Amino acid sequence: MVVTVTKKALAGALSLVERIIPSRSASPGLSLVRVDVRDDRLTLSGSSMEVDIETTVAGVDARGGEGSFAMPAHVFAQVVRAAPDQAIELKFDKQLAVKSGSFKTNIQLTDPNQAPRVEFPEEYGARVGAQALATSIASVRYAAATADFQAIFRGLALEQRNGKARLVATDGYRLAFTEFEGDLGLEKSVVALAKSTDELVRVIGDYDGEVDFTVTGTGRLSVRGERFRMNLGLMDGQFPDYERVIPSVFPLKARVKAKELVAALNRVSLLADSSANKRVDLLVKDGELVLTAEGPMGRSQETLAVIQEGTDSEMTLAFNASYLTDALSPLDEAVLQFSGPGTPAVFRPADEGEYLAMVVPLRTH
Amino acid sequence: MVVTVTKKALAGALSLVERIIPSRSASPGLSLVRVDVRDDRLTLSGSSMEVDIETTVAGVDARGGEGSFAMPAHVFAQVVRAAPDQAIELKFDKQLAVKSGSFKTNIQLTDPNQAPRVEFPEEYGARVGAQALATSIASVRYAAATADFQAIFRGLALEQRNGKARLVATDGYRLAFTEFEGDLGLEKSVVALAKSTDELVRVIGDYDGEVDFTVTGTGRLSVRGERFRMNLGLMDGQFPDYERVIPSVFPLKARVKAKELVAALNRVSLLADSSANKRVDLLVKDGELVLTAEGPMGRSQETLAVIQEGTDSEMTLAFNASYLTDALSPLDEAVLQFSGPGTPAVFRPADEGEYLAMVVPLRTH
Repeated sequence: MVVTVTKKALAGALSLVERIIPSRSASPGLSLVRVDVRDDRLTLSGSSMEVDIETTVAGVDARGGEGSFAMPAHVFAQVVRAAPDQAIELKFDKQLAVKSGSFKTNIQLTDPNQAPRVEFPEEYGARVGAQALATSIASVRYAAATADFQAIFRGLALEQRNGKARLVATDGYRLAFTEFEGDLGLEKSVVALAKSTDELVRVIGDYDGEVDFTVTGTGRLSVRGERFRMNLGLMDGQFPDYERVIPSVFPLKARVKAKELVAALNRVSLLADSSANKRVDLLVKDGELVLTAEGPMGRSQETLAVIQEGTDSEMTLAFNASYLTDALSPLDEAVLQFSGPGTPAVFRPADEGEYLAMVVPLRTH
Repeated sequence: MVVTVTKKALAGALSLVERIIPSRSASPGLSLVRVDVRDDRLTLSGSSMEVDIETTVAGVDARGGEGSFAMPAHVFAQVVRAAPDQAIELKFDKQLAVKSGSFKTNIQLTDPNQAPRVEFPEEYGARVGAQALATSIASVRYAAATADFQAIFRGLALEQRNGKARLVATDGYRLAFTEFEGDLGLEKSVVALAKSTDELVRVIGDYDGEVDFTVTGTGRLSVRGERFRMNLGLMDGQFPDYERVIPSVFPLKARVKAKELVAALNRVSLLADSSANKRVDLLVKDGELVLTAEGPMGRSQETLAVIQEGTDSEMTLAFNASYLTDALSPLDEAVLQFSGPGTPAVFRPADEGEYLAMVVPLRTH
């Protein structure tokens, strides 16, 4: 069977699949890409166990019937990327013969049943904007935990609240949520591994229009676009009752340009002690925010003008500098809302947008 | 003492010194940069033991006398790069107070005698073009060995031959030399650690004009430019008598565009077995060069047209693909000169330029 395809289309499709497929795995089948040729359609699929992906290659000319094949994903992708011509001919026989110009490669084929079997639902319950979903995931995802033992804290919760789609992440020391206009069709909250949602963002991040969205009976989150389908494994366990811990009374607020504050934090924290949580002290007083950090090499300080309001005339707090820069990163004009020197601070957009970040301060004594 | 300086000038000077200075070292003094303030001149110096460097900062306004100081090089460089304003004020007291806009940092100072003492010759015996020296080092340096036990093979030899400066590197499996018009003032060959010459290339690579060059009585190679001085440690031991092993009779030659051959080698070697020296087979026959590589994943082949000459009508050889691409990288139009299937091949520019690369083929049986 001979299939002709452009390098651009095949390399593009392979790049989506290749990143999911582990380059080395204890289970050798997992490093395979499955290729299905049917009715002039070339479909590539693979899995990391946590994420399944399938993508269809555009502009394929297939002659000589249909078939299913499997081969090492990374070698196939490297050969396609290296092709000297835009035209690529794939000849499937006992081996796969790849031909482009005078460059010819034979790649060993494997029984397609050795490759992971990926299955996708036929019915999708909801449709949402790809950009809104990708941007929302990307803006809260930092707050998820990375350590294995933190279980459900490594997840990103998706839920439907008052007609809006809400995404939440927390590692117990900080929390972020955001909402967007859309219906995920969810009756209750589901939690996907935050690391898996990164792969979803990568695939739909430059996708125009809408994607289909559903939670399957086998406990997977499935997303479908025009040329791809993806499953993300869902996590068991109860996502923390996060709303309970968000303070609502703020005796001091400060309004500031988030990018200027992030730049100042990056400067000041150079001298912060990385063995002491990269601590930066904040003093809000007289319409100024003074940042100070100290470590074995010395001490840094920077002062920013802020618009201060509230019943308290001043407050001193300490934070992990990285937690602050993460929390501020999706913001433009930000309102820093302080509930007290030892209780969580809340950062929100000045324009009442649907983003909230909460950070627990460091103990100062 | 207060010194004002532009961020650009200070950051530029620090970036030269910072790369030499190890960020961690068993000897804590080695991670320090020494700063000398004299007569409106700010001089930075540091050492990695193998390479010493000193650089002068331009456009300095120094008031209040002179002094010598030392501080952790990487912290100082990070703080300077982070400065929000172009104007930087350095106030040397018990600590160094760095001020730029509303950003203020105090960095701990150390006794300047804790920093390495770097000394440079007063007299330099020769002057050579900075570009010619940098380009020549960069074009042969790949042929030096990297493994510690290979001693003198990790060096780059500099010598004076027939009125030209010659640079040579070899790891025993391949060799490269190049020459340029210039007088290094060397009576006999000297060998610098190839890794140290990389630092010299980095410093003089975008330097116009000439640099002073000399070998000191204490066995160091010293190079001086307008704003910097550098010492490179020289290696003991005899550099191999390399000219003896370069073949001079070539029953087959092939002329080819080096960049096209490198591109084809990169493609074909994707399938090469990395546990078998990344072997690529070359067959020269009927005005064609056929490249073939094979490994556990499959087999690749590509054919290039060449201008073939010589007494032999065909030849088959095997090489480590990386050795070939390294050897060809400084070439444009290349002549591949084959002495036989089991003896070294020599690659030269078609235009009789002063570059020669020799590669020992792999055993084919």
